Amino acid sequence: MNDVADKRIEAAAAPAPGTERRADDPPLYYARHVFCCTNVRPEGHPRGCCSAKGSVQLRNYMKARAKEMGLDGVRINVSGCLDRCELGPTMVIYPEGVWYTYRTPEDVDEILETHVRRGGRVRRLMLHPDQTEPRE
Amino acid sequence: MNDVADKRIEAAAAPAPGTERRADDPPLYYARHVFCCTNVRPEGHPRGCCSAKGSVQLRNYMKARAKEMGLDGVRINVSGCLDRCELGPTMVIYPEGVWYTYRTPEDVDEILETHVRRGGRVRRLMLHPDQTEPRE
Repeated sequence: MNDVADKRIEAAAAPAPGTERRADDPPLYYARHVFCCTNVRPEGHPRGCCSAKGSVQLRNYMKARAKEMGLDGVRINVSGCLDRCELGPTMVIYPEGVWYTYRTPEDVDEILETHVRRGGRVRRLMLHPDQTEPRE
Repeated sequence: MNDVADKRIEAAAAPAPGTERRADDPPLYYARHVFCCTNVRPEGHPRGCCSAKGSVQLRNYMKARAKEMGLDGVRINVSGCLDRCELGPTMVIYPEGVWYTYRTPEDVDEILETHVRRGGRVRRLMLHPDQTEPRE
């Protein structure tokens, strides 16, 4: 791991003052806000990109499924590069700040059912801050 | 306010189980993760869009300023439509889930200095869940 990554992880482990919600903050606008990276890089880029691994289609599927499942207060957004390209496709779910890698519609179904609907975690797909390569 | 908005806000006010971080969740990858809507809609669309109000340039400015300020553990991302178009340009800062509208580089500077660096709030720019029009 390089110095920049070390520094970033240290900063994350000891969050800056005020990253917690305050008692007088307005209620969350979305109870759960999902961001799926759909960044595009030129073919052959050494880091790759989430869109080349199918993230656009998978995010569209996730958005449609969330609607079919009647999940209120949930938004499935696209985002620009989340900078964890080697682990992609990646998504992050806030306010929890839990990250996932996912490859198939079945992965998406499991994240929606277990995490988004029931508040659980899909351990096999979760990413850890010091992780730089997919497991398995 | 329509029924859909009512339902959404109700859901947000009483978050689904598990939207809080769990003791065994990995540390946050980014201490602060900012998403700036840069969605593009066709000219003349009744809801407008953030990009037509300068959000792409403002987000690029914010990213460069955050770097100049040496803010560690912060990422300034672009996102697709956050669906609060009438209030745009909009951004949301997680994990707090605090929303802002902003129009100028000075607005961006104030959000970076007051919220991102010092953990405060920029009251004059904050959005509330039931807000459907810009104030002032």
